[in-house]
Amino acid sequence: MSQITIASITLPAYYDKARNLSNLLKWMKRAADSSADLVVFPEQVLQGYLPDTLSWNGDVVSWQMAQAEVIPHGESVRALLTKAHSLNIHVVFGMTEHHPQHDEVLFNSAVLAGPDGLIGVYRKVHQPGDEKHVYYPGSDFPVFDTALGRIGMLICYDKVFPESTRELALKGADIMIMPTAWGYSGDGSLGDADPMVDSYTLFGRIRALENQCWMIESNLCGQHGNLHYHGHSRIINPRGNIIADSGSEEGMALATVDVRADIRAARSTDYLGYFFLKDYVPVSAPASPLTVFNRHAQPLGESYE
Amino acid sequence: MSQITIASITLPAYYDKARNLSNLLKWMKRAADSSADLVVFPEQVLQGYLPDTLSWNGDVVSWQMAQAEVIPHGESVRALLTKAHSLNIHVVFGMTEHHPQHDEVLFNSAVLAGPDGLIGVYRKVHQPGDEKHVYYPGSDFPVFDTALGRIGMLICYDKVFPESTRELALKGADIMIMPTAWGYSGDGSLGDADPMVDSYTLFGRIRALENQCWMIESNLCGQHGNLHYHGHSRIINPRGNIIADSGSEEGMALATVDVRADIRAARSTDYLGYFFLKDYVPVSAPASPLTVFNRHAQPLGESYE
Repeated sequence: MSQITIASITLPAYYDKARNLSNLLKWMKRAADSSADLVVFPEQVLQGYLPDTLSWNGDVVSWQMAQAEVIPHGESVRALLTKAHSLNIHVVFGMTEHHPQHDEVLFNSAVLAGPDGLIGVYRKVHQPGDEKHVYYPGSDFPVFDTALGRIGMLICYDKVFPESTRELALKGADIMIMPTAWGYSGDGSLGDADPMVDSYTLFGRIRALENQCWMIESNLCGQHGNLHYHGHSRIINPRGNIIADSGSEEGMALATVDVRADIRAARSTDYLGYFFLKDYVPVSAPASPLTVFNRHAQPLGESYE
Repeated sequence: MSQITIASITLPAYYDKARNLSNLLKWMKRAADSSADLVVFPEQVLQGYLPDTLSWNGDVVSWQMAQAEVIPHGESVRALLTKAHSLNIHVVFGMTEHHPQHDEVLFNSAVLAGPDGLIGVYRKVHQPGDEKHVYYPGSDFPVFDTALGRIGMLICYDKVFPESTRELALKGADIMIMPTAWGYSGDGSLGDADPMVDSYTLFGRIRALENQCWMIESNLCGQHGNLHYHGHSRIINPRGNIIADSGSEEGMALATVDVRADIRAARSTDYLGYFFLKDYVPVSAPASPLTVFNRHAQPLGESYE
């Protein structure tokens, strides 16, 4: 497919799964009406993200446990996959997943589906704050071959870590998709001058640029739990330029792009002039207190059947 | 040492080693007069950077070969080390080094010296364009324990690659120092709107922020060879904020900072709230055409005696 239309949606989430589902279905239709081939939604937009990540709350964990769904058999997940089929589009959305055989095991996941059904799931690897107590970490950054290109996913805090998107790029990703719940540091009264908007922009642009891949970000808006969200769902090209931005309110970033042509341009003559991945040199650092890492949690089962 | 004063110098280079040396000595004195403990200079500021990196030119290689010096015994190197001793300061500067036993082997190197003499040398790993034909690549990102903190170095194009500064951070660097020759994409008439200034800023800020380390950048200014340079030598704190900038003309970025206090703040509560290095997860990607790398050139000798 030479040209595709990408829609990245900013919308609020509620602690009301039926309401969230209804909004997702409505926006899928709107995006399809704008000729979107790919529609991207925020992190945990189905059940609602944690009210904050800095204080453990047993009620919150119980609520997430009760609201979690199995992929792809959960009722809401089936409704979203059916909609993608009927609209003939691809969709990425964030949700709380529970393991099919171990329903006390939760993941913070992103689902990728196409017209023919489920394509793949990404389970968030890097967990900020209280997520460490609620979710199992993912153990892989998979890349999926789709009719739109090779798609890899990451979620929110993953983008702080260059290794996340580097792994996707080295595995051949064309499009990196990031559902997120990236809040203001305060109550949002600073608007785009809030330092968390600045860091969001820096990280988003650089992950596209340093890997010369597309980066599609979808963020929440409004107050949700104790956090305030700044939206700015974006489509960023392989030179690190923001080519579409939803703004900070409910809405859509929309662009029609030639995925491969812009990657080829970025990796040959168009920007800085070199193919960065060709000169990749892995990190070589001895074990130390600063090299602790915990990609320890082997998945309990990779099957989504 | 609790507080230190850092000076990062923007200056032009000439294809005239005596003139460059004289400028370096003059700026070391000026910086010391401003109470600098650490003075940083651009890439290859001693012999002058390649006139461009996109066309091989045998005369240029011969000239670099003739102008190269051994570290620390070369005449200009000794003059700079003597000056650091007499001023009681640390200094970093870029130069063309030739190997002590294999004088046809050139490196694009950064020298770190203190009041007591040579501390260490970094040989550029990532080589853009024609550098690949002129210089041996370095094979390591060393970190040196100094009276000012743990110092690691990178040079110019290295900063496009997140692995460069990640390795320094994982090895415990407090201060990452980058001599560079980062040109405008054009003739400089766009000023700071030139896309190469934008990429310079993005990469500089993010390498500090994602590693929560200090990043000190020193760049050339003026026309040199076929390239135009934008200056903007900078001191960037561990939250990715530019706290001092030289501007685009010959001059000095100067700041007095508490190196460790700002690192501790960045890695605890001050920004995003987490210690990113603690959650480092290495890249895990299978071999592919995109994972070619060439940290192949084992140094011919690591001794600087």
